[in-house]
Amino acid sequence: VTEAPNLDETHDPARRSFVEAANLTDAAFPIQNLPLAVFSTEADPNPRIGVAIGDQVFDLKKVSKENERFAQPIRFALRETSLNSLFSLGRVALREVRRIAADLLDQGRSGNQVRRHALDLLTPMDSCAYHLPTKVGNYTDFYAGIYHARAAGALLTPENPLPANYKWVPIAYHGRASSVQVGQGAVRRPLGQRPPAAPATPPSFGPCERLDFELEMGFYLAGGNPLGKPIPIAKASQEIVGFTLLNDWSARDIQRWEMYPHGPFLSKSFATSVAPWVVTADALAPFRVPALTRPEGDPRPLDYLFDAADQAHGGLDVHLQVQLATAQMRAANEPAVEILTSNAKYLYWTPAQMVAHHTINGCNLQAGDLIGTGTISGPSPGELSSMLEFTSAGSTPVALPNGEQRGFLQDGDEVAFHGGCSRQGYATIGFGSCVGRIEAADVSSVGRAV
Amino acid sequence: VTEAPNLDETHDPARRSFVEAANLTDAAFPIQNLPLAVFSTEADPNPRIGVAIGDQVFDLKKVSKENERFAQPIRFALRETSLNSLFSLGRVALREVRRIAADLLDQGRSGNQVRRHALDLLTPMDSCAYHLPTKVGNYTDFYAGIYHARAAGALLTPENPLPANYKWVPIAYHGRASSVQVGQGAVRRPLGQRPPAAPATPPSFGPCERLDFELEMGFYLAGGNPLGKPIPIAKASQEIVGFTLLNDWSARDIQRWEMYPHGPFLSKSFATSVAPWVVTADALAPFRVPALTRPEGDPRPLDYLFDAADQAHGGLDVHLQVQLATAQMRAANEPAVEILTSNAKYLYWTPAQMVAHHTINGCNLQAGDLIGTGTISGPSPGELSSMLEFTSAGSTPVALPNGEQRGFLQDGDEVAFHGGCSRQGYATIGFGSCVGRIEAADVSSVGRAV
Repeated sequence: VTEAPNLDETHDPARRSFVEAANLTDAAFPIQNLPLAVFSTEADPNPRIGVAIGDQVFDLKKVSKENERFAQPIRFALRETSLNSLFSLGRVALREVRRIAADLLDQGRSGNQVRRHALDLLTPMDSCAYHLPTKVGNYTDFYAGIYHARAAGALLTPENPLPANYKWVPIAYHGRASSVQVGQGAVRRPLGQRPPAAPATPPSFGPCERLDFELEMGFYLAGGNPLGKPIPIAKASQEIVGFTLLNDWSARDIQRWEMYPHGPFLSKSFATSVAPWVVTADALAPFRVPALTRPEGDPRPLDYLFDAADQAHGGLDVHLQVQLATAQMRAANEPAVEILTSNAKYLYWTPAQMVAHHTINGCNLQAGDLIGTGTISGPSPGELSSMLEFTSAGSTPVALPNGEQRGFLQDGDEVAFHGGCSRQGYATIGFGSCVGRIEAADVSSVGRAV
Repeated sequence: VTEAPNLDETHDPARRSFVEAANLTDAAFPIQNLPLAVFSTEADPNPRIGVAIGDQVFDLKKVSKENERFAQPIRFALRETSLNSLFSLGRVALREVRRIAADLLDQGRSGNQVRRHALDLLTPMDSCAYHLPTKVGNYTDFYAGIYHARAAGALLTPENPLPANYKWVPIAYHGRASSVQVGQGAVRRPLGQRPPAAPATPPSFGPCERLDFELEMGFYLAGGNPLGKPIPIAKASQEIVGFTLLNDWSARDIQRWEMYPHGPFLSKSFATSVAPWVVTADALAPFRVPALTRPEGDPRPLDYLFDAADQAHGGLDVHLQVQLATAQMRAANEPAVEILTSNAKYLYWTPAQMVAHHTINGCNLQAGDLIGTGTISGPSPGELSSMLEFTSAGSTPVALPNGEQRGFLQDGDEVAFHGGCSRQGYATIGFGSCVGRIEAADVSSVGRAV
């Protein structure tokens, strides 16, 4: 692990919070993390901005009203019902918010005022509802996981598993922004056209029969760039304010039939889930790693994608895990089972490279935009990060402890992503979870399935 | 031409406006049209909603304040700086606005109050600035022009010009919403990766060398549907509030290299232009035609895409024209030259089919969303609606009257789309124009071109 820049007292592992749960070993939300979310409570259903601390949510809207340490533009942004305004103030503002919040929650430093109002400012995490962190103006999904591209390509186009452009172009497509949702609820199985059984025969129509997840990370953007002005690679990481877990739900049968030549459309746009929490880029500073080492023979990135600092610590060491709980498992009170793990360090392109590429044509990014990395598979069989890959398109189903098998997802299946970072000498930080439970397709409003 | 429904007194060709220019033969903006725009003036730079009448813009924000005929929800929507709120009220509200505006502008019916304030309520069209009609939450681009798909396919994949799914699936991709702009200004030539000269050699990097336009129509959506609830084909046309001209600017070299397997991305996202005016679905009622007759042997659309009324008058008879003016032509005061014409009736899928398909998986459409039809080429050589097609990818350049030639667009070229409808017994209506002038690429902010 290369030493990343910007390590400061907010990363000091000795700091403790007066919220005791934040000080437990391996707590996901210690005082060194402080990820942001938009939350509400039964008592106050207005969505507002908070940070996670231990097992509590700390209400930044309320505390910023009473605290003069927050500069006025930040105070205004913290009154909003989404994080767009705060993100538009850029990483400097986010750093300030995290620093002040850490002081207010610090066991040794927090003033009487905060502690006196703690009951009012803190709400148990489990009793909050979460809202989409930003109004997502645009959502873009990359394809930067080379192990995924190779595994998926081997199934779809075995003669040419990795596209010829792969090692030059950070491939991406525009996703659907309106159907991005917080990963905590139901995901309805989509209807659509499924591939013909044989060439030159009609497709069939009905509920997707090959419903899948894709394990990705997402990141949110700061102020962005005006139309026509690329963001140079050396400045790109400053435009990334925070990271999250992202599930790029995929309907494989619909996808196979629809995607030539213009890419995935309905096979993705029924739902994309993100975790409620945005882990700030600053909190992740200790967990930056070198960009994936390119094997001998791979080309050097073109100039607009190459930056020495980005190569040195543009990567992310985030451990990722996928759990599955079927309806039958839940009925029997059996715990969810881990079906795979992976790590964000396997991405072929860094987030900064994605931003530089996205804007090289002048495309304007905007505060609150969401970018997905693409599915993050790893080199081992247990690190194939979609059902498509690790069941070889359903042909080698996963055996679950209760005897059930899964080639693709069934109705009632609940998929949970978890993520976290740990490193000797630093506090462990977590991303929370990104969860979705599959609901049966709704065939009531359209013509009959065939 | 099949008789379309909903013809009423607003389509009566005998009606005349007190704005004289609206009564000229073949006026684009007679009292029977009244398209919507968001405009501002030098005297009042606040963007506001207006309708076109003759050579004037009629300020709906101002007039609705003083006029009790506008219901309160409409009056609130007309105070906004975009059309999203008005569109969210649906086609019934749009119909009401058009009916009232027509009465207010009618030579015989308008009251003294409007005429007395006419100078305040009307502004010469040429002296207005135009803004994007809606805040585009999501932009989707279809591929519904079968003559385009066949012509483009023949160049890119001659062995298989029309994809196997084409006659079953209304193919589309998510476009970039943030770079949709009003078609009246500059379009900067994008930088990007251009295809390798030979397989297994590096791509080159620099300004796009094959810059193109695509002649499309766009349409805007009403309130839309909640996530998970498809819009049935029989209700789909009610979700379409208005139509416009759309230029899907395309960087062909970047596109060819980047688009496999996830479709076009940077080759499109640098700019998409729409005309300032939104011609309401109601104004277009007399110009609806049957869906394109499918040749013998083509499949019947699947149930969720089939509706008898849509087949009978879901098509659009809109004449389209593309003009080109080079920098040299403008310097010599030579007029723009028509390089091609086409017609929206050539679309293989109707707008209602596009909406039904878009939502069949539960994807939620939202008020103000923009959908492009795809390039509308026709069956004749003079109706190939992109440079790619009508110059056979640059190999047979267009000869211009001044001796210049064009395979693709050069810096300084100005491309103007025009559109209009005419039919015996009805007033002609126009769409205005959608214009863009190519600016040289800006290489200042990135690494050197190679």
